[in-house]
Amino acid sequence: MADLALSGWLDAQRDRITASLFDWLRIPSVSADPDHAGDVRASAEFCAGLLRDAGLEHVQLLETPGHPAVYGDWLHAGPDAPTVLVYGHHDVQPVDPLDEWTSPPWTPVIVDGECRARGAIDDKGQVLYQIEAARGLLETTGTLPVNLKLLIEGEEEHGSVYFEDLLHQHLDLLAADVVVVSDTGMLAEDVPSATVSMRGVLGFELKVRTASIDLHSGSWGGTVPNAARLIGELAAALHDEHHRVTIPGFYDRVAPLSPEEQASLDAQPWDEDAYRAQAGGVPYLEGEEGYRPIERTGVRPTAEIVGISGGYTGPGIKTIVPATAGMKIALRLVPDQQPDEIETGVRRWVDETVPEGVEVSLEIGGGVAPARTPIDHPAVGALRDAIAAVWGAPPLWTREGGSGPEEALGRVIDAPVLFLGVGLPGDRIHAPNERMVLTQFWRGLLAAAELHLRLAKTGAAGAGA
Amino acid sequence: MADLALSGWLDAQRDRITASLFDWLRIPSVSADPDHAGDVRASAEFCAGLLRDAGLEHVQLLETPGHPAVYGDWLHAGPDAPTVLVYGHHDVQPVDPLDEWTSPPWTPVIVDGECRARGAIDDKGQVLYQIEAARGLLETTGTLPVNLKLLIEGEEEHGSVYFEDLLHQHLDLLAADVVVVSDTGMLAEDVPSATVSMRGVLGFELKVRTASIDLHSGSWGGTVPNAARLIGELAAALHDEHHRVTIPGFYDRVAPLSPEEQASLDAQPWDEDAYRAQAGGVPYLEGEEGYRPIERTGVRPTAEIVGISGGYTGPGIKTIVPATAGMKIALRLVPDQQPDEIETGVRRWVDETVPEGVEVSLEIGGGVAPARTPIDHPAVGALRDAIAAVWGAPPLWTREGGSGPEEALGRVIDAPVLFLGVGLPGDRIHAPNERMVLTQFWRGLLAAAELHLRLAKTGAAGAGA
Repeated sequence: MADLALSGWLDAQRDRITASLFDWLRIPSVSADPDHAGDVRASAEFCAGLLRDAGLEHVQLLETPGHPAVYGDWLHAGPDAPTVLVYGHHDVQPVDPLDEWTSPPWTPVIVDGECRARGAIDDKGQVLYQIEAARGLLETTGTLPVNLKLLIEGEEEHGSVYFEDLLHQHLDLLAADVVVVSDTGMLAEDVPSATVSMRGVLGFELKVRTASIDLHSGSWGGTVPNAARLIGELAAALHDEHHRVTIPGFYDRVAPLSPEEQASLDAQPWDEDAYRAQAGGVPYLEGEEGYRPIERTGVRPTAEIVGISGGYTGPGIKTIVPATAGMKIALRLVPDQQPDEIETGVRRWVDETVPEGVEVSLEIGGGVAPARTPIDHPAVGALRDAIAAVWGAPPLWTREGGSGPEEALGRVIDAPVLFLGVGLPGDRIHAPNERMVLTQFWRGLLAAAELHLRLAKTGAAGAGA
Repeated sequence: MADLALSGWLDAQRDRITASLFDWLRIPSVSADPDHAGDVRASAEFCAGLLRDAGLEHVQLLETPGHPAVYGDWLHAGPDAPTVLVYGHHDVQPVDPLDEWTSPPWTPVIVDGECRARGAIDDKGQVLYQIEAARGLLETTGTLPVNLKLLIEGEEEHGSVYFEDLLHQHLDLLAADVVVVSDTGMLAEDVPSATVSMRGVLGFELKVRTASIDLHSGSWGGTVPNAARLIGELAAALHDEHHRVTIPGFYDRVAPLSPEEQASLDAQPWDEDAYRAQAGGVPYLEGEEGYRPIERTGVRPTAEIVGISGGYTGPGIKTIVPATAGMKIALRLVPDQQPDEIETGVRRWVDETVPEGVEVSLEIGGGVAPARTPIDHPAVGALRDAIAAVWGAPPLWTREGGSGPEEALGRVIDAPVLFLGVGLPGDRIHAPNERMVLTQFWRGLLAAAELHLRLAKTGAAGAGA
């Protein structure tokens, strides 16, 4: 059962909190676009203001060679209370294709109980309920049950390039007994769940050049290699007829699920029609043979072509045999795949698959190892109880298909990483018409407070206060 | 042996003619780009001035819903002399990628005996030697041996969309006994040749949509269809393992070569290393099994992917499963393939190859039937003798891999179509650093005059004067 005092406080604060959310969402903090650098900074300043208003201390921007992160803390719970580091991010994805938004992305609206705007759920909404949970506890009880630190990154949607450096640089400031990541989702409003693993990611871009210039398709078509066709063949060759990724050694290190995780996975409700509808109405599902869709997106590694291009793509037609083409691929990795070993496999795949003599450029980057939180850790029990108190049922343990800087957080801070996240499968993150379901937002706020209360009782302490 | 009087005239005129060529090449008459509409018109006006200066009459712009063509004639050879319609075009291809030009495309230069600029060989140079051949004959003899008409199109590089309408609209003005197309090439400077057939063309663009929105590759990757991968698979599926086009019925109507054409083809010199170097240094050749490269580019039909695109193609990476992708394809057709039958085959191919439920958009357009000139026609004999007189050896008969409005010319004007063209395989048409070899240009001028002198003796007359 959720804390009654906090519930009462919340009822009186909803309008103010919603107004704060709207003001923040109006700032187009697109970290991938240099033209929005000023907006990302404005978003950081706005976030710092929210932290100060909530009663947090040492509020400051942590500068990086890219966009700034925001830090704030409250460290008066005493040396016996654990120190909790809450992580989220204030930057957002680009908004193209703009014409597919039913309302402007930087003008938040509430429709059918959803807040629609870029960044609503990913991740400003999920950061805001953490800040407001702390404010609510401070305003209703005058204290917090834990020593609390918040670190709100500004480059999560741009690959978190400088994030690990930032952690190392401020290691003392950020030291904690447990990390709480507030950037994930649940299976459904009535099926609470929490992530205990996130897939890693490795991106690569392959460019091929089959001639020094584009050639006239009438004069040369039929004899010379066509880079656009080659990139198509390479895209097709990335999976075999069983839809398994053909990168050498790709599956060698994939660890089997523990019985408890398998049981949690088997207990998850799943309906194909609903799932396809949530995906925006896909005509069919596909994927690795021998695995169910729920396994393919969480516990199995994948390779997705995120972009392909070659030759003439303007209006009409240009009668050429294209000389150059390329594709960008995002690999999702699961425990215990290692980015460096997979990178070696990618290089071998390119060597073995691209015809001899074709000029190749291969850029590999953004490697993030998969992350896993041990289910038997007491902090995981605190999370289970907090979610059960708010949603009325304990969470199923899931694996998140996405990837983030959580692996670095767990490794550098050297603490277990909990995932409290209220996103839903239909939230259209990274896509037009991103939304946040408001009932999930208010529950997230209560659960964040419940989690602090329960983590205070786990006895893990000593790292940061 | 070329006409001596004309050779003397030419020696005195080279600087003036070169200056005219440079002035014309400085006009960026890119017909595919609406921003250059004024330049295409300026090019037409410039061309009209050249015709007037040469002594031609009835010089006028023939307007179309697109860019204007240019017309001029000289019809005083008498009713017993044949009427010759010379065809060329004054519009040019776009110049991208601009950074691959070693000198600016609109600033003609002469380097190593080559004129380098966009349009040098395709087709302003080949139009200019026709105009100057007429001027030379008029200035040295006071007359022309044939009734001459010139039709210089302004939309050849943009699909000649309104060209057939233009022919029908001005049928009386354009009536002729023989058509001379001045827009093709030869095998080599020392291997004169002339085209007797041009491949037809049919373009199509296929777009696929596998979901209503791009989806997050972490959350959905591995289960939902990926449009970028699908377009790659479709690109790869366009040819089978023998590199034959998989469009149903594609080869059904391909006519076998006549013995004379086969003999001419077999006599053509061909060296793989030189050919690959001319193609700008391709690492290997490929194509339909069972045919030599020289056959694949001229006598066999082909399918080339001229462009492919899908998903995110900007800088860096965006972690999506793309919902949309597309490809553009240019089919080259040979006698006796029919564009309407091939179009039916393309529609069947799409139906059979794209997975059910995927949203498809298919645009098919620009159909041009393949063209063929009967080798035993007396006008072809005149062309053979004219080329032999200038190059010192009779031409080999070739088939041009490219396609143009020549099929409509022959059909609507109802006259045999001759191809006098001096382009070379290394001329980089439609590509950066387009060039024209100047010795070929001067020879073309003489050959154009020789052809008029010989056509006058074929006895075909009555259509146009």
